[in-house]
Amino acid sequence: MATWDLQGTKHHVLICNGGSCMRKGGEEVTQAIRDEIDRIQLHEYVHTTRTRCNGRCEDACVVIVYPEGIWYRAVNEQIGKDIVRKHVRDGEMLHEYVTYTYDEGFVMPKYSVATRGKKK
Amino acid sequence: MATWDLQGTKHHVLICNGGSCMRKGGEEVTQAIRDEIDRIQLHEYVHTTRTRCNGRCEDACVVIVYPEGIWYRAVNEQIGKDIVRKHVRDGEMLHEYVTYTYDEGFVMPKYSVATRGKKK
Repeated sequence: MATWDLQGTKHHVLICNGGSCMRKGGEEVTQAIRDEIDRIQLHEYVHTTRTRCNGRCEDACVVIVYPEGIWYRAVNEQIGKDIVRKHVRDGEMLHEYVTYTYDEGFVMPKYSVATRGKKK
Repeated sequence: MATWDLQGTKHHVLICNGGSCMRKGGEEVTQAIRDEIDRIQLHEYVHTTRTRCNGRCEDACVVIVYPEGIWYRAVNEQIGKDIVRKHVRDGEMLHEYVTYTYDEGFVMPKYSVATRGKKK
């Protein structure tokens, strides 16, 4: 029952807590991301939300950063912390874990090793 | 256990399924939004995800549209359907329900009637 003032928040990080992601460490990834935000005092600039399934189960654990629209795959605790420091704080994507970038729609860059998945 | 191809998807709609939102019709809003997407065949262009609490409980039920970064408050089934048709399909915000827009960070526009909330 909290209502936070999000004015000034620059990034919204969505951490998948769907079934597949929870089996691949979703709880630990959630805590690692939140601990790193606390440690480097980024509360005002980044907001986190646990989600249910994001429909990319082969990529578990999935983390998404908005408004950039960057989807990450195979996130573990260390990569979660790196997303906070490198992407959120320093503005550098972690290319090796990117599944989608955004350019008037989600785009899977050529360097992505993720499966395309089923056509909607 | 699904892995969808999200290439070409233009909008990601997050529907809050936290405790406060579920008490304000979160399940019905989720279904209404998904039904409207089905009805007007927007599957390829919009992806939906249920979230846990987004930290804006006074605004229940909360719906967020990315990559625009528009947060909506007090969404019921009809407003959920309007978000799909007017915002997602036609590109028109529903101003009377907007809490935040995005401009290098979340901004609460002057016309918003939402409470600011607690400082992070």
